[in-house]
Amino acid sequence: MQKTDILLRELSEDGILRLTLNDAKRRNALSEAMLTELGTAFAEAGDNPDVRVIILAANGPAFCAGHDLKEMTAGRAGPDRGRAYFTKVMAQCSGVMQGIVGCPKPVIAEVTGIATAAGCQLVASCDLAVAADTAQFSTPGVHIGLFCSTPMVALSRNVSAKHAMKMLLTGDMTSAARAAEIGLINRAVAPDGLQDTTLEMARKIASKSSMTLSTGKRAFYAQREMSLSAAYDFASTVMVDNMLARDAEEGIGAFVEKRAPQWQDA
Amino acid sequence: MQKTDILLRELSEDGILRLTLNDAKRRNALSEAMLTELGTAFAEAGDNPDVRVIILAANGPAFCAGHDLKEMTAGRAGPDRGRAYFTKVMAQCSGVMQGIVGCPKPVIAEVTGIATAAGCQLVASCDLAVAADTAQFSTPGVHIGLFCSTPMVALSRNVSAKHAMKMLLTGDMTSAARAAEIGLINRAVAPDGLQDTTLEMARKIASKSSMTLSTGKRAFYAQREMSLSAAYDFASTVMVDNMLARDAEEGIGAFVEKRAPQWQDA
Amino acid sequence: MQKTDILLRELSEDGILRLTLNDAKRRNALSEAMLTELGTAFAEAGDNPDVRVIILAANGPAFCAGHDLKEMTAGRAGPDRGRAYFTKVMAQCSGVMQGIVGCPKPVIAEVTGIATAAGCQLVASCDLAVAADTAQFSTPGVHIGLFCSTPMVALSRNVSAKHAMKMLLTGDMTSAARAAEIGLINRAVAPDGLQDTTLEMARKIASKSSMTLSTGKRAFYAQREMSLSAAYDFASTVMVDNMLARDAEEGIGAFVEKRAPQWQDA
Repeated sequence: MQKTDILLRELSEDGILRLTLNDAKRRNALSEAMLTELGTAFAEAGDNPDVRVIILAANGPAFCAGHDLKEMTAGRAGPDRGRAYFTKVMAQCSGVMQGIVGCPKPVIAEVTGIATAAGCQLVASCDLAVAADTAQFSTPGVHIGLFCSTPMVALSRNVSAKHAMKMLLTGDMTSAARAAEIGLINRAVAPDGLQDTTLEMARKIASKSSMTLSTGKRAFYAQREMSLSAAYDFASTVMVDNMLARDAEEGIGAFVEKRAPQWQDA
Repeated sequence: MQKTDILLRELSEDGILRLTLNDAKRRNALSEAMLTELGTAFAEAGDNPDVRVIILAANGPAFCAGHDLKEMTAGRAGPDRGRAYFTKVMAQCSGVMQGIVGCPKPVIAEVTGIATAAGCQLVASCDLAVAADTAQFSTPGVHIGLFCSTPMVALSRNVSAKHAMKMLLTGDMTSAARAAEIGLINRAVAPDGLQDTTLEMARKIASKSSMTLSTGKRAFYAQREMSLSAAYDFASTVMVDNMLARDAEEGIGAFVEKRAPQWQDA
Repeated sequence: MQKTDILLRELSEDGILRLTLNDAKRRNALSEAMLTELGTAFAEAGDNPDVRVIILAANGPAFCAGHDLKEMTAGRAGPDRGRAYFTKVMAQCSGVMQGIVGCPKPVIAEVTGIATAAGCQLVASCDLAVAADTAQFSTPGVHIGLFCSTPMVALSRNVSAKHAMKMLLTGDMTSAARAAEIGLINRAVAPDGLQDTTLEMARKIASKSSMTLSTGKRAFYAQREMSLSAAYDFASTVMVDNMLARDAEEGIGAFVEKRAPQWQDA
């Protein structure tokens, strides 16, 4: 796999792709270059049958500090005061976030340090998230006159209204322990156990049928936007197709025969 | 009331219908026969003015282990590899789940042992749920190549996204204590206090006006799928009709006169 | 600002409007007069550039006991048994609640005593809520045959389904500590620290750009009713417009130059 300076990619033999934000001096900001790397990495991982699960990690004290404010400020130089540039960057960033949701492989955020603004959105956009108990989360746009409106889209689909509003209106930091309580992340663990916890979770998921995981992930995000009856109609169809797929026949057979299943893509 | 082997029905004098899954040797699997029993029982209970509240309980160590995999496997024998059969079973199961939501009487799950796959969906589909602190919950379809896509519809309408995804992608068991924290159930209690806790809750609700309960339950599930303004328009109409109903006039009158209300259907 | 007997209004120099329900002998019931006062107060506050944040507090042991049942009962006297009257009151009340959500200024509920029925709805409709740990919450309409259908609209947009149903079907009181756990309020604090906690939160928010706060609050409630992709399209547009606004340019500039921002409206 391609290896870049700002986004490291490491694919293990058991199908776990570790993407590491590696621009510590810019606090792993979502610069245009970083967004391009992330977008490409998730798209390629989605298409690569060797990738079964993705871990999104980071080097340095900050997990991700959100957009690159210097780049954004430079973008104001144009005759339109930056409108075209900001529009492009926002579209790119929203595309990356939706690319994580739309990626057929499960994505686990492994959060070491602070995750702020679009960095918090990145965590919220992953399917699962584990953080060091020293990590912190915030949507601090209000401090600089720029409300975290796009991070809010992901945040408000993870935590309840008053918790989201508290973060958005005050810009205050939320501890990892509190983030786990309100549902922004799954767990907070001791920093020296973080990587093992994430890896164990990733390995467990990687041992499942990729077809089954991608079917389920896609269905999850689709059905949650439907009415109850439409969701049941849709999910019932998904179940029937899943039942008829080779891996379900193999999985159920293995279960009945008390043996380990052999997935088609393993 | 009709009494069957696999689903016991017991109606108390104070209007509490206790439905007990009674197929312990199959871990109370949602076989076709069980689904038929459940569908009929909820439909009849909805129509029966003597039923005020329903408790859904189970005999044996498992509350409910989901679909009957042997029956499902046998269904593959057809020339279409089971498509028509699976479609029928999924429609039946989704119908039963929506029948619980649509039943005008409040339904309380009383969960003793494990509730897995469609058994977990059954708990999620009830209005309220109390569990023994030894109970456990999971959506383990990923283990056998068959993602719990229909259970997910109910699960994701109870718990937040990352908690749901954790259960769905790993298939891991969730303890009753954790299930209470994330909102899948209302409470976890000591096993020997479970039945009393559920009964107390059921009696409290059974002492209310059935008309009021059914009005409110129906409105709850309807309004939550609407926009805020549509929900307010709808709920305001419901409130006006409720105010004009005999039981509200009686209830408010009794409150003002500091006496116990006499409901029309009591 | 206009000062009335039943709703006190106090605007501090730093832009914090304190609205105090002041009809303790009627437990701050949402009488027609109170609803009119509240509707006017929030509408005026929304238009008043001197108001940056609103605290909604109450005098007396009850925060708010919901609708005025005596007034409602008197409304039955008409030839239509009150239908026209109830319709008017419900529309007015739903209008006030949506007026809080639609108010461009952040609203913090400061809950001292019990908040029941439409009083609980009032808390749920605020953006943030802090309560004394002696406060209690309930939707007790079932006790009097009148399901809390309109309070449920706000409640079910704050807490998960089973928690909402527990409150609605039993009518039981929920402690402030539990209300914080389930997301109905942000925090429960010792009674003698309540006012300071709320004020500190209000001051923090009042120090931000009002343009930014109103942009974000409006976007929050709009986007949460959209599909993920529609929400991202919408929020991206909001972000671009926000970036081009004077206060974002100032805020980002101040951040880069490590100085305090000077908001346009401060």
